Amino acid sequence: MSSTKSYAVHSATTPLTPWTLDRRDPKPHDVQLEILFCGVCHSDLHFARNDWGISIYPVVPGHEIIGRVIAVGGHVKKFKVGDIAGIGCLVDSCRECDNCKEGLEQYCFGGAVFSYNGTEKDGSGLTYGGYSKEILCHEDFVLRISDKQPLEAVAPLLCAGITTYSPLRHWKVGKGQKVAILGLGGLGHMGVKLAASMGAEVTVLSHTASKAADAKRLGAHKFILTTDEEQAKSVANYFDLILDTVSAEHDYNFYLGMLRTNGTMVCVGVPPPSPPVGAFNLIFQRRSLAGSLIGGLPETQEMLDYCAEHNIVSDVEVIAMKDINKAYERLLKGDVKYRFVIDMATL
Amino acid sequence: MSSTKSYAVHSATTPLTPWTLDRRDPKPHDVQLEILFCGVCHSDLHFARNDWGISIYPVVPGHEIIGRVIAVGGHVKKFKVGDIAGIGCLVDSCRECDNCKEGLEQYCFGGAVFSYNGTEKDGSGLTYGGYSKEILCHEDFVLRISDKQPLEAVAPLLCAGITTYSPLRHWKVGKGQKVAILGLGGLGHMGVKLAASMGAEVTVLSHTASKAADAKRLGAHKFILTTDEEQAKSVANYFDLILDTVSAEHDYNFYLGMLRTNGTMVCVGVPPPSPPVGAFNLIFQRRSLAGSLIGGLPETQEMLDYCAEHNIVSDVEVIAMKDINKAYERLLKGDVKYRFVIDMATL
Repeated sequence: MSSTKSYAVHSATTPLTPWTLDRRDPKPHDVQLEILFCGVCHSDLHFARNDWGISIYPVVPGHEIIGRVIAVGGHVKKFKVGDIAGIGCLVDSCRECDNCKEGLEQYCFGGAVFSYNGTEKDGSGLTYGGYSKEILCHEDFVLRISDKQPLEAVAPLLCAGITTYSPLRHWKVGKGQKVAILGLGGLGHMGVKLAASMGAEVTVLSHTASKAADAKRLGAHKFILTTDEEQAKSVANYFDLILDTVSAEHDYNFYLGMLRTNGTMVCVGVPPPSPPVGAFNLIFQRRSLAGSLIGGLPETQEMLDYCAEHNIVSDVEVIAMKDINKAYERLLKGDVKYRFVIDMATL
Repeated sequence: MSSTKSYAVHSATTPLTPWTLDRRDPKPHDVQLEILFCGVCHSDLHFARNDWGISIYPVVPGHEIIGRVIAVGGHVKKFKVGDIAGIGCLVDSCRECDNCKEGLEQYCFGGAVFSYNGTEKDGSGLTYGGYSKEILCHEDFVLRISDKQPLEAVAPLLCAGITTYSPLRHWKVGKGQKVAILGLGGLGHMGVKLAASMGAEVTVLSHTASKAADAKRLGAHKFILTTDEEQAKSVANYFDLILDTVSAEHDYNFYLGMLRTNGTMVCVGVPPPSPPVGAFNLIFQRRSLAGSLIGGLPETQEMLDYCAEHNIVSDVEVIAMKDINKAYERLLKGDVKYRFVIDMATL
């Protein structure tokens, strides 16, 4: 075991504080990273505060991890010391179920191991995330990172990027399609960039008028202020796909009415109270309400390569580790454009 | 205008009583039917009692209509006097929108005209359904009926049949797929017969143990008593498609957990209180909750032809017109196997 510095939260009501954690011993297929940047995802906050009731403390959050390889096991083929690499939301899975075999490790039936607050398959205990100096996992769960893009802006692709890329691909977004992005935050701003790059007509749906200019800057073709009744009506039966990135309470039925025949609204956020769904809103126009969880390893690599090729990164605000608690407060208020990323050199 | 005998309901709290209604004048493309049989759909009851708050009285229910052609307009090509023909849930649509052009008249953006409680496009007033002696509509909305099957048992195909056939086709049900039918009533029993005929493994989900034998008789391979925790657990992450035919209050989340990766639950019933949907149940395993409304005219004809070819009809209990109010009471208690059909000769 090796000790590494980190920031951890020890209860739902206390702030993140410095903590020294013990990483498990490396194995022949493991890649060890010195972490350079780690994105701050809204899920980090949910886990820190036990919003979903599943947190196991201490929690070391962080699953948008970019680092430099500092050691590799004897069997590692994909990476060598000095490489830049990434670790996202997953560090292991059963590798045997149909989903794992298809590269859909996020839907592993044997239990995917998440990068923090997960349980290692070898019995070595809890997983701890990227708010730390070093991390290690099996090379199959480590991603290749292009050297052509600023690393701090690439980090958020590992969750915000793949969470929006995967449903856009699964529902075959492309030219001629009308796509709405509901909510312009960390996930939403990636959704806009990605959907626009795929050739779709992109509309941002938001209840904040001041986001209109940014929506356009990010690549959206239209902006609908959802609190304006006329604007909302103008997109009734309009969209092929709505990507719903909102985690706060909201009315699914209001947005379902904006889907055209055979349209789908895909949720990637989890509103705390389960929204009621009127069956009529689905039955008329044969609409669907669906969900999507990050992406598997092959698709995450595909997304990283796609973003490198199309020069797509996240809009980030780099912070020091000590400012994480302030960042969480600002995140709660939606005061970030559009992702905090921790410069781990400051730990 | 021509007078025709019917049974109508004049308020949400009064029973169906005999009423003489005036049918609009026939036009050159109209086909006039003497009604032989009319199925009793649960929607008839919902409209009679204004359960959805959209009833316009008087209501003459009935949209599973089989009759004999007694007159045709000068431009009618599809039918001649003496033919047996059917009219289902639709009697007109805008014919100009993209959905109409694709034969998805049920999703007409210009406003499909339903067989009762609808508004005629020519301004001639409300439509009145099949609890009557005669009916007429444009030949495009009249269906060809095989002479090889008992007509009383064919009538329910025009709503219960197409409502279950359409989603099974749209979601490509076939060999190798695991399909659940939730609820074994008028719709559900057709769902079982149709899904089994398409080669799927069919499971009936029901909270009534006594339905197990019937489920098997109708063609189901499995029966899951949903109140039995062990049985319910045995189908976690199991089905490719759940066809939810239940109109009573029920918990969508309980059934969503039975869908495998990429599985879909399709609602064709409308529970009066909108059920809450937990986004986690959709996000994990990329599940969908969808809806489906009857079917368009081409697909309804396809379904009728398919049922004639595969010798599929509804299980019916034929009643006299005067017994309709008793039948509604029994329908409310689920006491029918599986569809009441009115012998219109009794009117």
